[in-house]
Amino acid sequence: MPPSFADEARDDELAALLTADLERLLPLESTSLLDAAARHALLPAGKLLRPLLLVRSALAAGGSAERVLPAAAGLECAHVGSLIHDDLIDQDTVRRGRRAVHDHYGPAVAIVTGNSLFFTWFEALAECAARGVPHARIVAAARIQARAGRLVCEGAARELAQAADLETTVEDYMEMVRLKTAALTSAACWIGATLAGARRARTEAFAAFGEALGMAFQISDDLLPYAPASEGVGKPANSDLRNRRPTLPVLIARDRATSAQREDLRHAFTAQPSDENAEAIRTVITATGADFAAAEAAERHTTLALHHLSQMTDTIHRRHLEALAIGRSAGR
Amino acid sequence: MPPSFADEARDDELAALLTADLERLLPLESTSLLDAAARHALLPAGKLLRPLLLVRSALAAGGSAERVLPAAAGLECAHVGSLIHDDLIDQDTVRRGRRAVHDHYGPAVAIVTGNSLFFTWFEALAECAARGVPHARIVAAARIQARAGRLVCEGAARELAQAADLETTVEDYMEMVRLKTAALTSAACWIGATLAGARRARTEAFAAFGEALGMAFQISDDLLPYAPASEGVGKPANSDLRNRRPTLPVLIARDRATSAQREDLRHAFTAQPSDENAEAIRTVITATGADFAAAEAAERHTTLALHHLSQMTDTIHRRHLEALAIGRSAGR
Repeated sequence: MPPSFADEARDDELAALLTADLERLLPLESTSLLDAAARHALLPAGKLLRPLLLVRSALAAGGSAERVLPAAAGLECAHVGSLIHDDLIDQDTVRRGRRAVHDHYGPAVAIVTGNSLFFTWFEALAECAARGVPHARIVAAARIQARAGRLVCEGAARELAQAADLETTVEDYMEMVRLKTAALTSAACWIGATLAGARRARTEAFAAFGEALGMAFQISDDLLPYAPASEGVGKPANSDLRNRRPTLPVLIARDRATSAQREDLRHAFTAQPSDENAEAIRTVITATGADFAAAEAAERHTTLALHHLSQMTDTIHRRHLEALAIGRSAGR
Repeated sequence: MPPSFADEARDDELAALLTADLERLLPLESTSLLDAAARHALLPAGKLLRPLLLVRSALAAGGSAERVLPAAAGLECAHVGSLIHDDLIDQDTVRRGRRAVHDHYGPAVAIVTGNSLFFTWFEALAECAARGVPHARIVAAARIQARAGRLVCEGAARELAQAADLETTVEDYMEMVRLKTAALTSAACWIGATLAGARRARTEAFAAFGEALGMAFQISDDLLPYAPASEGVGKPANSDLRNRRPTLPVLIARDRATSAQREDLRHAFTAQPSDENAEAIRTVITATGADFAAAEAAERHTTLALHHLSQMTDTIHRRHLEALAIGRSAGR
């Protein structure tokens, strides 16, 4: 099969193809309230990082972009479905600069819309059969999808259990991030390589790359509320503070703090969230250098991701994956 | 392949096999809060109607029970996942005589547990490959599962939109039930026949049987709050009243009522739910014979289900499906 347009496309061209596929999955003409709510959350699309990882991984493994496009668009649906539920759980009212689905359509519709998008994920994957992907690969990808979905749920449950718990260990936080975020970026790359027909030993490098990348992203993301200018990000910067999330900067600050600082931190972290308490937490994080240490941890995961990448055949697609890893590691 | 133990099993024997498979999917040893919450909702198991429909349909289509058991157990997981979300949305606190998951573990855990069970559905289906089901059939079943999942969500959204709306037409109610309930019982039978390798023309009869059955069940279920002795059912009998659901008995009563009765009904249905208003609704339903008319509608769907069944080859398994249809049509 000669390389198609999509196989040589730039990221923005692939993003346009993915957006067209999302439009197809959630047609504007639909009279369903769920489709309207899903469109509200999905379109205009975000950076489409996960579907781009999937398509680029398929290409890097020698596959075709067109054949895996539905699986990639479906992955974005699943990701947005989980964001809809996260925003409801965290009571965040803004996402990507728009009102969160639960805020606009009510909590019940938010629950059901998220669910519907999870099912769309699998329906879209199955469509790859009509594009020539062998059934055995689709079953393998379905298993990866389903397992990743479960792991993301497990991560969400652990995040809930860690809320307001300043005794959380760094290891428990890292494991939670591995489940909540890295499981899906790992699945993105793993599914792409699997649908392209890569053998197991090769798909493992893709899965490991995606996992390290996801860790780096989430750790960077968790730094945003403590960055000097945290205004203007799509997700309200104070969400983690309001939900008392013991993220890496908070935990490193706790470990490095003097006893007076630790007392300040504990008080500000467990008290009623307020601007004043947020500022007190930021002060201890900055004073202990926990923000730099957390940024370094993100950087280490990016380096690990690039190491996994270096084990793959050097192609233009591998270089695109590299760019996705480096370009994003400083934040989403 | 000679018939196995399971292929000749009675329903209670199949239920024991299904329960063992649920235990395997959600091991007691698991330290996950989600697995604990899922076990709370799933075990001891209910009547396992949907997985029994799936296994019996596979057998009636000439397949094996053992090969499709994981798909059947997974279907029960998906069903219970949707009940967990329904109970949260409807604020019902009791299910199967136990505390609802959101009441016991909190709403956030209820959302995530339901999601996790949806993913288990697909993970379990993929397991059928290791039991010898060809990949092409699994992909076909995955498509049926995913579509059914989406339809159930669409039904839930319509049910929300119909709440407190006494202008709902009987047709809109029927369509909502077709989506919310019948889509999953239809999928149960359709998936069973598909995994067994039945051709498309044959699987359609199974899908139609399951759909008619689901309609009959839901219409019967919706009669429970208006039955003389509605105490003691697992789901609080007043849930539909509290959530102002315009179910079939209410809608038939509206259509048959005198203008005085209609005024009573409208007032009692739209006012703050109370025992007194519930009684007023019951009175109009009984006086207009709407309860008998709704029961007849359920009966018509059971008859339709049996008609679809009669088009299949006469086997012991078809007779088991018949018994499931008749035994349950009077309620769940």
